[in-house]
Amino acid sequence: MSGEGVEVPTPGVENLSVAEGNDDFVDPWNVQSSSTAGRFGSQKIDDELINRIEKVTGKPVHHLLRRGIFFSQRDMHQILNLYEQKKPFFLYTGRGPSSDSMHLGHLIPFIFTKWLQETFDVPLVIQLTDDEKFLWKDLAIEEANRLAYLNARDIIALGFDVNKTFIFSDMEYIGSCKEFYMNMCRVQKLVTFNQVKGIFGFGDSDCIGKISFPAIQAAPSFSSSFPLIFNGRKDVPCLIPCAIDQDPYFRMTRDVAPRMNMPKPALLHSTFFPALQGVQSKMSASDPNSSIFLTDTDKQIKNKVNKYAFSGGGATVEEHKEKGGNCDVDVSYQYLTFFLEDDERLAQIKKDYTSGELLTGYLKKELIEILQKIVTQHRENRLKVTDDIVKQFMTPRKLNFQY
Amino acid sequence: MSGEGVEVPTPGVENLSVAEGNDDFVDPWNVQSSSTAGRFGSQKIDDELINRIEKVTGKPVHHLLRRGIFFSQRDMHQILNLYEQKKPFFLYTGRGPSSDSMHLGHLIPFIFTKWLQETFDVPLVIQLTDDEKFLWKDLAIEEANRLAYLNARDIIALGFDVNKTFIFSDMEYIGSCKEFYMNMCRVQKLVTFNQVKGIFGFGDSDCIGKISFPAIQAAPSFSSSFPLIFNGRKDVPCLIPCAIDQDPYFRMTRDVAPRMNMPKPALLHSTFFPALQGVQSKMSASDPNSSIFLTDTDKQIKNKVNKYAFSGGGATVEEHKEKGGNCDVDVSYQYLTFFLEDDERLAQIKKDYTSGELLTGYLKKELIEILQKIVTQHRENRLKVTDDIVKQFMTPRKLNFQY
Repeated sequence: MSGEGVEVPTPGVENLSVAEGNDDFVDPWNVQSSSTAGRFGSQKIDDELINRIEKVTGKPVHHLLRRGIFFSQRDMHQILNLYEQKKPFFLYTGRGPSSDSMHLGHLIPFIFTKWLQETFDVPLVIQLTDDEKFLWKDLAIEEANRLAYLNARDIIALGFDVNKTFIFSDMEYIGSCKEFYMNMCRVQKLVTFNQVKGIFGFGDSDCIGKISFPAIQAAPSFSSSFPLIFNGRKDVPCLIPCAIDQDPYFRMTRDVAPRMNMPKPALLHSTFFPALQGVQSKMSASDPNSSIFLTDTDKQIKNKVNKYAFSGGGATVEEHKEKGGNCDVDVSYQYLTFFLEDDERLAQIKKDYTSGELLTGYLKKELIEILQKIVTQHRENRLKVTDDIVKQFMTPRKLNFQY
Repeated sequence: MSGEGVEVPTPGVENLSVAEGNDDFVDPWNVQSSSTAGRFGSQKIDDELINRIEKVTGKPVHHLLRRGIFFSQRDMHQILNLYEQKKPFFLYTGRGPSSDSMHLGHLIPFIFTKWLQETFDVPLVIQLTDDEKFLWKDLAIEEANRLAYLNARDIIALGFDVNKTFIFSDMEYIGSCKEFYMNMCRVQKLVTFNQVKGIFGFGDSDCIGKISFPAIQAAPSFSSSFPLIFNGRKDVPCLIPCAIDQDPYFRMTRDVAPRMNMPKPALLHSTFFPALQGVQSKMSASDPNSSIFLTDTDKQIKNKVNKYAFSGGGATVEEHKEKGGNCDVDVSYQYLTFFLEDDERLAQIKKDYTSGELLTGYLKKELIEILQKIVTQHRENRLKVTDDIVKQFMTPRKLNFQY
């Protein structure tokens, strides 16, 4: 999966709406759209779906779902049907390991996936596309593989259950599982250059590795790609939580699945995590000030938020008190919607900031404390993730599920 | 490798010459050329090279080399330099397992490869491209894999040494060796769609599997794709004996090798094995009368040669006695150049047939006896190849060479 996709500017999360019939062009590298639910047949996550999830699971949904950060879906009702009927499904998500250090935005799909796994108690496979990163970046293959291991450590630090989770590097897993390679071939036989040109914008001067890569991201959608986990079963459906920019891969996957006699994956799409500089800026690993990294110190977090987080507040205290702040563009407020779990506190902040009572400085102070706490906790958790634990997660094996 | 390529019409082997500056278009599926040595920088195998091979090996060359059936080469002098310096190299050849039963033409590269291996005493890897056949044919993946095993049995029956030979199915080996997959990725990063379009004639409506396949045929050219055999060494050069239609793959491989810091493979190219109906006909697995199959009975061989082998003889006995036979187009004579080892006997037949003294019927009788003997022997040898022996050849392992 592309690690870059989630670094693309995002709209204010408050503005998420279903776009229809517009000219959005979404591929994993270019997203020129405020919102894409409704396009290409995905559905908005509406109150009815959220209520149903709460009903069948008997617990409140995660705030990332409640607040519309996961805003679009495909076939989620069918997944809930399976759950109600006590039939199996599994979770698949992934990441393109492009840098030593992940930023906060990279955690969002994994935080949400962890909640899904704990809620539904199903197997989870996490693909680290070191082959993709090698193909797209000026990177040696060994370096891409090393980054996969580094990123695995960050993912594991979020607290995934080793008995229910398989994390794999493409380089290693493809070279250890013929069933995975066979599914790659099956997809590659059913998709033409014309199709990937249309879906991903590839051109004649792109390397053949890029052109055939989409099949590699498609393959984990099928339970037969994991014979040790699913005991050879080909019919276990898959639910993929991912950022919206990854949807083209899975539209393609859903297109070929019936011709492979395999179930179409269901999807839950998140919006993008904004750059500190605001929704119009691109987050970039080469610009350390464009986001908060998991390796940042408390001081760096404080300085970055204070200096770079785009403010929706007034130009002066007087103006702010008079006109109020604009939560739709204020990055600090938006970050709070991602990371402040307390709904009442968030609503209060929004009210007070919009009215002008709360100043930007206070909003930033609140955010800094939350982020410092998250990053500190993450650092401590990561220290406990030994090489041996990483190896356990990344060893192809049976998980604690019967098939 | 394509099993179809060698089924393309061939010129009379006597007519082999170096074409230069013409418009031949050679890809593994279409060959519109009488000869392609000299094009794209390959060299004709001349007397100097043959003499040198005999000198450094201390033995006469194989008749397939002596008679110009292997007629073109790249960097063969460098391979001889290595041999003189007692430096290592290895052999790589392959086959696309497209049918249950191989025909006589399919044996040619393997017969010659066996001679090379025995002469130079080097490791041999044999690629069975079941993935290619799955991608190109209307074939299930499991069926392509089954054909790979069937074809392996025929290849093993030629008498390869299990201690020096590794035969692999792509489906299985790629799914068991990350170093092979990494080399696939390295090649795929260095070759664009434009390039494979130019080399192989791919179009926008071809599937992405075909488009990226050339990298899979390239990968075995590199010793690092076989870590168990070469103990991780990346610098052991490769010599590839193959039919000329496979050269485009290896031109591409030679182009990318320096950018991978790996040695370019050397090549020995054979001409095509003609269809029974003559050099203008296409051999086809769906037409059992277009060739002699390894499963044919003595009676089938006799009938096919008598009924279908294109004759270069006169229309009547009188005309034949007057004008003589034309060995350049006579398929029975050409088959003898492939399979009759005795040079003197072959020369005598040519002389007598050309003069008109020898009738077509006698030529065919001679050929029938030889082919019946070869096919009978092959059948007996194949019966001795047990599942266990096939498994031994196809298990990734160390061979009897030190690195």
